[in-house]
Amino acid sequence: MPSASDLSLNTATVRPQWNLRQCVDGCVRHGIGGIAPWRDKLQETGVDEGARMIKDAGLRVSGLCRGGMFTADGALSDDVLDDNKRAVDEAVAIEAACLVMVVGGLPDGSKDIANARSIVTDGLAKTLDYARTVNMPIAIEPLHPMYAADRACVNTMNQALDICDELDPGRTGAMGVACDVYHVWWDPDLSAQIKRAGKEQMLAFHICDWLVPTNDLLLDRGMMGDGVIDIKAIREQVEAVGFTGLNEIEIFSAENWWKRDADDVLATLVERGRTAS
Amino acid sequence: MPSASDLSLNTATVRPQWNLRQCVDGCVRHGIGGIAPWRDKLQETGVDEGARMIKDAGLRVSGLCRGGMFTADGALSDDVLDDNKRAVDEAVAIEAACLVMVVGGLPDGSKDIANARSIVTDGLAKTLDYARTVNMPIAIEPLHPMYAADRACVNTMNQALDICDELDPGRTGAMGVACDVYHVWWDPDLSAQIKRAGKEQMLAFHICDWLVPTNDLLLDRGMMGDGVIDIKAIREQVEAVGFTGLNEIEIFSAENWWKRDADDVLATLVERGRTAS
Repeated sequence: MPSASDLSLNTATVRPQWNLRQCVDGCVRHGIGGIAPWRDKLQETGVDEGARMIKDAGLRVSGLCRGGMFTADGALSDDVLDDNKRAVDEAVAIEAACLVMVVGGLPDGSKDIANARSIVTDGLAKTLDYARTVNMPIAIEPLHPMYAADRACVNTMNQALDICDELDPGRTGAMGVACDVYHVWWDPDLSAQIKRAGKEQMLAFHICDWLVPTNDLLLDRGMMGDGVIDIKAIREQVEAVGFTGLNEIEIFSAENWWKRDADDVLATLVERGRTAS
Repeated sequence: MPSASDLSLNTATVRPQWNLRQCVDGCVRHGIGGIAPWRDKLQETGVDEGARMIKDAGLRVSGLCRGGMFTADGALSDDVLDDNKRAVDEAVAIEAACLVMVVGGLPDGSKDIANARSIVTDGLAKTLDYARTVNMPIAIEPLHPMYAADRACVNTMNQALDICDELDPGRTGAMGVACDVYHVWWDPDLSAQIKRAGKEQMLAFHICDWLVPTNDLLLDRGMMGDGVIDIKAIREQVEAVGFTGLNEIEIFSAENWWKRDADDVLATLVERGRTAS
């Protein structure tokens, strides 16, 4: 049962309510141990200023969200690769534990998911080459299969770990996975893949809950305890392989949590961290 | 490219518009080779009468939708097993190629998906015992992972085929899978699992399309050609292992196809069968 200091606030959880300054202050106020900014929040504040305020507040950074989107221009483009390099640099600036990768879906007009996956692996390889030079771990986040078309064509832990093994066969810690319970809870192969990842490839752990019913494919994630995911069981498996990072909370919730007072949201997630995960 | 006679109309595609009689007549009018009734449509008409009208029309029956829902009562219950036996009998009555199984999700209030899967395997085993005595093949339909909580906790071809291998190790044809492109198109392991199934375990093939965006988890399926699934590529793989059944079209579409004139829907699916799959 994670206490507040074991948690990290992904800024998307209070995206409409708070800017980065408010998120940092909120984490301190609620005793939350870390933060995971989205790049837009960080850039809005300015990377240097953001890095300074996070450091001054004594917060750990469980990850920077996000690099990836390698298929955005159809084929792998210099623009996309340059943006991923900047994301790596930003992650370094805020001393993030990793740069989280949402790899991109099918290119516009394409039905060729094998080709999309090939573009993604190529983009990850090139970004990894750069990230190694600045010691920034790259965390591939397998997204739920319902996002395969429009957000990420890496959809299972097994698939993500196959890429890690291909690009970092030495399991050096330079590349691994971000395991978000929302995306992987259903996977019959989950336990085996968590073990396979081990400490070296388990770079981030994200929690929230799957609501029944889920009313929107993207913006109806639940607070821990309000859904059907056995978060505790998954967390125990992740920790059993040696993961010691924070429990990052990332809840997109247009009709519920995004409409609430952000301090209430943080109080709730601290409470639910203890009781429901 | 399937012609009309290679297609089968799943009655869900025109659920609000037509009863079974109208579906049968519509198939004949449009030259569609087969039908796949849902049990409620069949029971509304009466099983014997429904069986007669399908036979008289010369339609093949690609499957009966559906048995399963083994987790509905929390533990496996006699009620559920009896209902599945009745489903087998109905499938026999209409000379269906198979009884399609939507296995059920998490029991109410449960977060234990491993337990749900155990209930399901047990229910499938008992139903198979009965179905063998009347020679009705049981087709497990892996559902998209977004339905794992509330509809089916069998979510990949690999998982379904593992169950088939466990319950019917002789690959006798008594148990196999219904491969619906909507549920499996994203799976990086799909091609391998189609080959693994082979002719013996590939009992049904369902087509429709994945829309981008998808506005509802359940009722926003697309007509072939309107989405991102490479239906043709999947169909070729399914046929390459020896599948010779019909291409069953099952489109839940509350805001589009369910609001159209049903004859227009059938004309469209015949056209799209030819051009987009």
